[in-house]
Amino acid sequence: MTKTTASKPTAIKQAPSQAKPGDRVRVSTAVESTEGILLPRPALLEQDVTILKLDSGYNVGINNQQIKKIEKIGAGVALEAFPSLKLQQKKDLPAVALIATGGTISSRLDYQTGGVKWLMEPGQLFALVPEIAELVRFKEIRTPFLKSSEDMVPEDWQVIAKHCVELLNDKDISGVIVTHGTDTLHFTAAALSMMLKNLSKPVVLTYSQRSTDRASTDTVLNLKSACRMAVSDIAEVMLVGHGSSDDTHCLAMRGTKVRKMHTSRRDAFRPINETPLARISSDGKIEVLNKTAKKRAVNSARVALANGFDGRVAIIKYYPGCCPTIIDHYVKQGYKGIVLESVGLGHVAGHDSQNSWMKALREAIANGVVVCATAQTIYGRLNPLVYSTGRELRKLGVVYLQDMLTEVAYVKLCWVLSHAKKPEEAKKMMLENVAGEINDRLDYKTFLV
Amino acid sequence: MTKTTASKPTAIKQAPSQAKPGDRVRVSTAVESTEGILLPRPALLEQDVTILKLDSGYNVGINNQQIKKIEKIGAGVALEAFPSLKLQQKKDLPAVALIATGGTISSRLDYQTGGVKWLMEPGQLFALVPEIAELVRFKEIRTPFLKSSEDMVPEDWQVIAKHCVELLNDKDISGVIVTHGTDTLHFTAAALSMMLKNLSKPVVLTYSQRSTDRASTDTVLNLKSACRMAVSDIAEVMLVGHGSSDDTHCLAMRGTKVRKMHTSRRDAFRPINETPLARISSDGKIEVLNKTAKKRAVNSARVALANGFDGRVAIIKYYPGCCPTIIDHYVKQGYKGIVLESVGLGHVAGHDSQNSWMKALREAIANGVVVCATAQTIYGRLNPLVYSTGRELRKLGVVYLQDMLTEVAYVKLCWVLSHAKKPEEAKKMMLENVAGEINDRLDYKTFLV
Repeated sequence: MTKTTASKPTAIKQAPSQAKPGDRVRVSTAVESTEGILLPRPALLEQDVTILKLDSGYNVGINNQQIKKIEKIGAGVALEAFPSLKLQQKKDLPAVALIATGGTISSRLDYQTGGVKWLMEPGQLFALVPEIAELVRFKEIRTPFLKSSEDMVPEDWQVIAKHCVELLNDKDISGVIVTHGTDTLHFTAAALSMMLKNLSKPVVLTYSQRSTDRASTDTVLNLKSACRMAVSDIAEVMLVGHGSSDDTHCLAMRGTKVRKMHTSRRDAFRPINETPLARISSDGKIEVLNKTAKKRAVNSARVALANGFDGRVAIIKYYPGCCPTIIDHYVKQGYKGIVLESVGLGHVAGHDSQNSWMKALREAIANGVVVCATAQTIYGRLNPLVYSTGRELRKLGVVYLQDMLTEVAYVKLCWVLSHAKKPEEAKKMMLENVAGEINDRLDYKTFLV
Repeated sequence: MTKTTASKPTAIKQAPSQAKPGDRVRVSTAVESTEGILLPRPALLEQDVTILKLDSGYNVGINNQQIKKIEKIGAGVALEAFPSLKLQQKKDLPAVALIATGGTISSRLDYQTGGVKWLMEPGQLFALVPEIAELVRFKEIRTPFLKSSEDMVPEDWQVIAKHCVELLNDKDISGVIVTHGTDTLHFTAAALSMMLKNLSKPVVLTYSQRSTDRASTDTVLNLKSACRMAVSDIAEVMLVGHGSSDDTHCLAMRGTKVRKMHTSRRDAFRPINETPLARISSDGKIEVLNKTAKKRAVNSARVALANGFDGRVAIIKYYPGCCPTIIDHYVKQGYKGIVLESVGLGHVAGHDSQNSWMKALREAIANGVVVCATAQTIYGRLNPLVYSTGRELRKLGVVYLQDMLTEVAYVKLCWVLSHAKKPEEAKKMMLENVAGEINDRLDYKTFLV
């Protein structure tokens, strides 16, 4: 838990003032004056902005270049790491549950230490985004663990899934929201998609690319949209986040057809090879975009947990010159599955004399390893039938995973291998659609959306 | 050389006719009649289309559903694998050279065997795309080898570079065109970008996603646009291909900022983190889009070959649960460089107790291995300073490659390690811009273009 979102607080350098963080100040530009509590500059990405906490609870960033004057107009206040608002929850609103797992959305600068504090109770959430108290009632907030998502391991997915099942089977709860770091969020979305059976309510994963300390934070719209989808009519595991670089709308994307496609943009998560489930406007309107979206069911069977992950699976990304001894390495280590991120329509070197990929793959498969192919192009579908290399790989027993994402294929293969008794059964299961991870028909308009 | 683009020729099943491949036929729909030589159905993707070779040399595909009648109107002809047109080359046109290396663009169904024949002489090229004889004069066509691009290895890149240098230093030649398979084309583009020094003329790589036997072939516009760019004023290594799914225009993309992003679309190659160099309309108009495009220079120094690749470099794609023993594996095998395709802004598990990535990376770096980080999001720039995991990895000595693509980083690290004397020198070289592989300022509009 040593992750921090910022360097230690330092005095404002560029702003022409003696005001210190915690002081109540008035910041004047040529156009307007703004009053609020001066905050420390939190993120290294926003060194050129002075940030104020307004009386509404929101933070605002003002470009240092435009600031004419900063006046201290009030005494210093102790900056709480996580101010908590004691808002009354409205009993007539539909109930949701929140599982906070860490990540930027659950973290906030501790103004005293420069480290991070994690979100622990509903009042803190309301302080971040007060409007959500008008949308839903938080019946329960759980924090099974708090970690950065790059530190997540498959065991964590199982813990989250277990909590989801418990909460979803509470008849009072309309849907579950999971807040999560962005780095590996799409892996977790795929894992929950595999593990939650008889799903009749929404499971909404959401995130923040920019922390709440930053003027450009995406937490507000993402969290509001997640609340709206959690009480919507779509009963799927979905990821909800910014649909564009501005604050006009969010998208709800199927948990098995989504991927982080940009390091820093707020709309980093994109639907891959599929139309998004729904569009959530900033005014709250939900437009269902995908006809295959599963509907909420009332009085349906209880949600069940199809648990189990076999971690003896590796992703191998192929490249020219890639030595096939990497296959032998995993076979020797007792691995049971390999996701081969191939080039083109599903190829690796097929006719090489020095580096015999065909030989290495044949031996791995003979050893009972399930080898599946995905596309490193990300978009599109594999086709082993067009070229002889593909036909030969298919003949060896490589399973061609259609348009399934590499990340989803990895999660699914871990999951399948913990359930299948034999490699042949696992191969068959990999090609059966569990949660929309295979799209039989690709809409041409789903490229680079 | 066993690659084929199709199954063995079979008789037309659906078309209501006794005509055989090779017969001269008239195909009638409700709207029109078309005359030509009936071709075998070549590609598995186009089973529902009847393909005719017109007298112009082009193939046309007619939907079987719409065909009312197929009449045999002439005797059968022997179907040549590669019909050659004896077009007169125009002496007043600017001269280009072509290096054919294989791939779909250089291959064509052999109607006798069902296998593939490779392109060998200019007349065959003119038979495919007769108009190119009006655009440029082919002074020389070389075929150093013919292979599918998934079979290419770094040694092949050096052979292509050697031929490029020889041809570029012929004063009569305005530019060089390289035809290549699509699977690993972006790797070759990056390799030529690193190896060709003092470039004063265009080096244009082009491809075909759909073979010339198919009605939807992209060969015509790609090859015409490549010819146009080869005699243009832009002196860079560039990849030229379809800009959209229709035939309106091609894009010229910098060799270090391009990636195959779709398995099958004709516009599969997309610019990443950068504005394309130019747009080539189907009518031949070239619009320069990127101000940083380097201009053709006359009477400049000779092009030099900065040869050398050290193949002891691996790409490791990180995922939750990925075991760091993979690092040890490569260190033990004597590898000198690792490109770590990281999650988020440049992270791997930082605070794990079981799988110590930090420990494995520290040991690798202590062993002299150069470890570089790239982003598996593909788009965007790394930033190790925002979170503590990034700061710790940077402190260990991991080199953060800004917005450089993983594929380019791999090619560059192979190249750098063959030139640098010490790891520290290699690390420094990795962050020096050799051929536009690092973009200091990312235009917001370059996401998902």
